[in-house]
Amino acid sequence: MSQLEIKIGGFGGQGVILAAEIIGRAAAIFDGKYATFTRSFGPEARGGAASAQVIVSDDKILYPYVTRPNILVIMSQEAFRRYGSELAADGTLIIENDLVRAGDSPPGKQMFGIPATRLAEELGRKIVLNMVILGFLTAVTGVVGAESMRKAIAESVPHGTEDLNLRAFQRGYEFGLAEVKQAGVTS
Amino acid sequence: MSQLEIKIGGFGGQGVILAAEIIGRAAAIFDGKYATFTRSFGPEARGGAASAQVIVSDDKILYPYVTRPNILVIMSQEAFRRYGSELAADGTLIIENDLVRAGDSPPGKQMFGIPATRLAEELGRKIVLNMVILGFLTAVTGVVGAESMRKAIAESVPHGTEDLNLRAFQRGYEFGLAEVKQAGVTS
Repeated sequence: MSQLEIKIGGFGGQGVILAAEIIGRAAAIFDGKYATFTRSFGPEARGGAASAQVIVSDDKILYPYVTRPNILVIMSQEAFRRYGSELAADGTLIIENDLVRAGDSPPGKQMFGIPATRLAEELGRKIVLNMVILGFLTAVTGVVGAESMRKAIAESVPHGTEDLNLRAFQRGYEFGLAEVKQAGVTS
Repeated sequence: MSQLEIKIGGFGGQGVILAAEIIGRAAAIFDGKYATFTRSFGPEARGGAASAQVIVSDDKILYPYVTRPNILVIMSQEAFRRYGSELAADGTLIIENDLVRAGDSPPGKQMFGIPATRLAEELGRKIVLNMVILGFLTAVTGVVGAESMRKAIAESVPHGTEDLNLRAFQRGYEFGLAEVKQAGVTS
């Protein structure tokens, strides 16, 4: 059974929850897999932190709680401090380059960084940084198909904003493809 | 440790996901408890079915998967067929009266019904049936505080629709209070 656990952490307003939700939809509805989406509300939610977890699997998921994510997406320093150590030893760390310092020995096996907020701002709306991140994740991990992600995005974002969100996805996707090429990694 | 598991099932467009999300926010952010929100995407998601699960607890939640809900909210016959048998023996079943037939021996210890779709239509917008259901659930189960639910609704629904959604909540809440009074149950 092939199963991948993804965790996304950041702060409120970065679109963490929607990003995780879209991965789940893309995997289950358009890639024909199973997915679960989980989020916890606790004291940290009151402080403005946001995190969400997705499991993508070829088979039905029996235990949906992510404990050792294979892919950890970190969009704030606070989220890095809180969740960094959870990443599996052979896992992939993805950080928002301008917001997160991962230090000299980041957790996991490989790390990719993207200045998602800045790229989103260049597209005119900082709010689409989560779509930039999704494009990047799709390119560097291959956990979901790019076309499935585009479909899931189109049906998950507010009417009239599909084009902007898809351009943001594309920006992150191309940034990721270039990164992978440079690193010599095949996803 | 006091822990309550809630499952909501229906079909796409009934606002199942948002309803579950609001319970989690109300419990964690305004009632000072812990909550987890989980949803699964699988073949049934492709068929238009929707379900979501919330656990509300006084303590940190270690295992967030709902297997035997204490409260089961059913908004479609298909959801009843699929999830009805999961309800705990001493659990509470809440059904959308006009859409669900629970049969002669419904699962659980007690059952409450509300014509939520019709009540929402009377308020002018069928789409707020999920808020009617939330008001009803709050009154008959007491799992979250009414004031916490109102605050969570106000910050979770689209700007400009707060008033309509809160009126729908209130309609369901009053319907539930009357029901509880009649049944001689104290929540």
